Amino acid sequence: MLRGIYPGRFQPFHLGHLEVLKWGLNKVDELIVLVGSAQESHTLTNPFTAGERIEMIRGTLIENEIDLSKIIIIPIPDILMNSVWAHHVSMYVPSFSILFARNPLVVRIFKEAGYSTIIPPAFNREKYNSTLIRKLMITNGNWKDLVSESTYTFIKSIKGDERLKEIVGSDK
Amino acid sequence: MLRGIYPGRFQPFHLGHLEVLKWGLNKVDELIVLVGSAQESHTLTNPFTAGERIEMIRGTLIENEIDLSKIIIIPIPDILMNSVWAHHVSMYVPSFSILFARNPLVVRIFKEAGYSTIIPPAFNREKYNSTLIRKLMITNGNWKDLVSESTYTFIKSIKGDERLKEIVGSDK
Amino acid sequence: MLRGIYPGRFQPFHLGHLEVLKWGLNKVDELIVLVGSAQESHTLTNPFTAGERIEMIRGTLIENEIDLSKIIIIPIPDILMNSVWAHHVSMYVPSFSILFARNPLVVRIFKEAGYSTIIPPAFNREKYNSTLIRKLMITNGNWKDLVSESTYTFIKSIKGDERLKEIVGSDK
Amino acid sequence: MLRGIYPGRFQPFHLGHLEVLKWGLNKVDELIVLVGSAQESHTLTNPFTAGERIEMIRGTLIENEIDLSKIIIIPIPDILMNSVWAHHVSMYVPSFSILFARNPLVVRIFKEAGYSTIIPPAFNREKYNSTLIRKLMITNGNWKDLVSESTYTFIKSIKGDERLKEIVGSDK
Amino acid sequence: MLRGIYPGRFQPFHLGHLEVLKWGLNKVDELIVLVGSAQESHTLTNPFTAGERIEMIRGTLIENEIDLSKIIIIPIPDILMNSVWAHHVSMYVPSFSILFARNPLVVRIFKEAGYSTIIPPAFNREKYNSTLIRKLMITNGNWKDLVSESTYTFIKSIKGDERLKEIVGSDK
Amino acid sequence: MLRGIYPGRFQPFHLGHLEVLKWGLNKVDELIVLVGSAQESHTLTNPFTAGERIEMIRGTLIENEIDLSKIIIIPIPDILMNSVWAHHVSMYVPSFSILFARNPLVVRIFKEAGYSTIIPPAFNREKYNSTLIRKLMITNGNWKDLVSESTYTFIKSIKGDERLKEIVGSDK
Repeated sequence: MLRGIYPGRFQPFHLGHLEVLKWGLNKVDELIVLVGSAQESHTLTNPFTAGERIEMIRGTLIENEIDLSKIIIIPIPDILMNSVWAHHVSMYVPSFSILFARNPLVVRIFKEAGYSTIIPPAFNREKYNSTLIRKLMITNGNWKDLVSESTYTFIKSIKGDERLKEIVGSDK
Repeated sequence: MLRGIYPGRFQPFHLGHLEVLKWGLNKVDELIVLVGSAQESHTLTNPFTAGERIEMIRGTLIENEIDLSKIIIIPIPDILMNSVWAHHVSMYVPSFSILFARNPLVVRIFKEAGYSTIIPPAFNREKYNSTLIRKLMITNGNWKDLVSESTYTFIKSIKGDERLKEIVGSDK
Repeated sequence: MLRGIYPGRFQPFHLGHLEVLKWGLNKVDELIVLVGSAQESHTLTNPFTAGERIEMIRGTLIENEIDLSKIIIIPIPDILMNSVWAHHVSMYVPSFSILFARNPLVVRIFKEAGYSTIIPPAFNREKYNSTLIRKLMITNGNWKDLVSESTYTFIKSIKGDERLKEIVGSDK
Repeated sequence: MLRGIYPGRFQPFHLGHLEVLKWGLNKVDELIVLVGSAQESHTLTNPFTAGERIEMIRGTLIENEIDLSKIIIIPIPDILMNSVWAHHVSMYVPSFSILFARNPLVVRIFKEAGYSTIIPPAFNREKYNSTLIRKLMITNGNWKDLVSESTYTFIKSIKGDERLKEIVGSDK
Repeated sequence: MLRGIYPGRFQPFHLGHLEVLKWGLNKVDELIVLVGSAQESHTLTNPFTAGERIEMIRGTLIENEIDLSKIIIIPIPDILMNSVWAHHVSMYVPSFSILFARNPLVVRIFKEAGYSTIIPPAFNREKYNSTLIRKLMITNGNWKDLVSESTYTFIKSIKGDERLKEIVGSDK
Repeated sequence: MLRGIYPGRFQPFHLGHLEVLKWGLNKVDELIVLVGSAQESHTLTNPFTAGERIEMIRGTLIENEIDLSKIIIIPIPDILMNSVWAHHVSMYVPSFSILFARNPLVVRIFKEAGYSTIIPPAFNREKYNSTLIRKLMITNGNWKDLVSESTYTFIKSIKGDERLKEIVGSDK
């Protein structure tokens, strides 16, 4: 049994994330999708709750007929201690041996903790990019084709794009 | 889509838990299994990490040919504020409408937060009981038949019963 | 302007607390009532939220025609560092110079922080005692005369005594 | 009994805040003034402790002959979980039904938690503005007429404007 | 350069601790003395602050002419996550390779984190025992000969034994 | 016995810090070196763990033949409550009476807590400056002469400058 882990904040989960997930799932028996900053929501960089993000991920996987039984989605709150973060993660999830991540700091922290890491391909990051999608939500741009149909429907159903605009409008 | 939630500490996950899970899954489309006290491990009442408990649950479900795609297993750390606990939970998990729980305080807290609750049947609680199983582990009693085969094998593979004995032997 | 501070958990606020409060108010211009363990509720020793306890205190003061404008009620969450507790308190409340408390440790901690302290008289502690009142609530005993009328009515209106019984019944 | 809640950081409490408070008090029987970010002080955006802010509010109310017995001032520390914030607040304060706030995010968070909200008029926000007042304190500008007399005297007595300048001068 | 670590709460530091320390120092070039539960004080099991405990240790070492330059005393607050504790410790202290500890759980946690461990001899634990010394302080027993002269003088100078009696007398 | 305290983050410890330390040690019997933000590491402003910083300080002191027995190095995690910070510090360290610090806010916070403070000379701050050294590490500039030989060797041995570059390269 070979397990990999794929960390992200998924604000929101988009088609680029889906490509990484499919690519990673090909390399392992089971893939842990780690939903980071799980305690955050209703902010500019983290508008959606962990639960909402999990619904997006599951909906997208079902829509794409990916075997849910091989995917383990785990939300994890931040701890503000980078040097123990990889160990903190390993407490919350089934045992794993491979990290899939592009972020050099994340790669280093897991390497220091003894994990092997594989850097996934970029999958058109200029187009599929959470920061860009959040901007498009705020400016009434076209973000529909950057996420799965189910994610688009879900975000609309919880008025997630309106939430983002309200956060922008807040003077705090 | 009807979702239910089934909270527990699952130290360890035993056959009584499995019965509640199967019974609950019959009543909803998807069932969230909430792994509480997720930050704890290596204590007398919480010997196993959240990740280890998730492995027990998944192994038991696979062994019993239960459709994993309908089960959402979520670890959640304690917050020490009972009056916001149900709201805290709802931040970490997909939206749900029904709680399955026997504990009167848990039932009350979720009722106060607006959820409907169903009390599951007892399923032989005297026999299938985590406290009892932990005691049997410590005293070299027979706990093998109280958990699934895969859970037994898993606990043995991580020397979980030895860990419990070491905790008992600690003078702190 | 002379201010005093009177700390307690007030689970619930009873007629003995009222006597201390009136006695203390006689000695100062304004009295701070510090509602401790403010983050706790729904437990055996802390069944009521801070907000509920504040309602009890205000209701009792109005019922007894005590000048509310001289009373400052402040909830404060626990910090688990005794040696900085008095300084933590002084951050949350208007400046004060006198502590009213019987608990020797509380007295010492505030003395070490440079405050003067006065020990209030006992006011029939065997009868007016929060632990006892909580026990009477659980056993359907007679606790009505140990709290003010408004507090009794308030606790009944939020079914506070039933909440306590549910906590007792919980197997966690 | 109709209660409203008016949240703010009040760094410092100024005459615009006073107008909102008087306007809100007209609409309810009792008004909760929620002093947010209560754990913070000695920073550029939060120079004053919660206790100091409470003194400003009380002093201003007395100076303006507003009935203190209808005002409930409650300090509340931040929690970094927006989605449970309204529920966290409701734990610390007497029960309320109406929120008075202009900030769109605050409005949304309380609406999602089931409260009704009323947006207060702006009351000359360009003039009465805490950020501006803090800037005037730092630059030795004229901020005296933007706060009540008692608040001005209080801030001077604790050398609050000097504290702000020292914070600006800090190289951390 | 070989470094060892010796964890304890040292409430108070006694002559048995001194023996372990001397024994351990013989086995390594430098010895880290880890003062645990550093955030606690003024309780029955943790009466002394971390700073006070550090003064006891330094005083005892000087009195016994042990080379202070080979001893690194580090206070560390608790985290309530046993499975990351060893990693948490390693963030706060210079790198080390050997643990000196008798507590089976501590030994296991550090072993799981990849450290080697040596169990020190018992050095008359029935006599030199912090729990016993605290009891003797409370009952006016003879504890003078169980700690170093400088520790005895220090505890007397801060009235540490009186503090313990006040904690016992507290009704919280 | 006169003790002073010298707080800093020491990211990294450089020759300017060393000058302050020597200057301070001349004024007291023992000097506490307080390593702040001890929980942080692997960030742009706090790349090194507390343990790594302690190794730099000890190495530099040994290299400069300063008597280690007069220096007490204590790591301390941040608390986000400025008004209790000085009291928090005093809990973790042996008693002291003099603060050595240049930062006006730190000076004020300790003065408010009753300590006397001495402002050390600047010792060529334009040259010896942690922010500058971190920038030089990132840009492959010459920082070797700004730290002690042992600190340079130590940082190289843990690949600390590479860690900083990876942090810069991170897209989070």
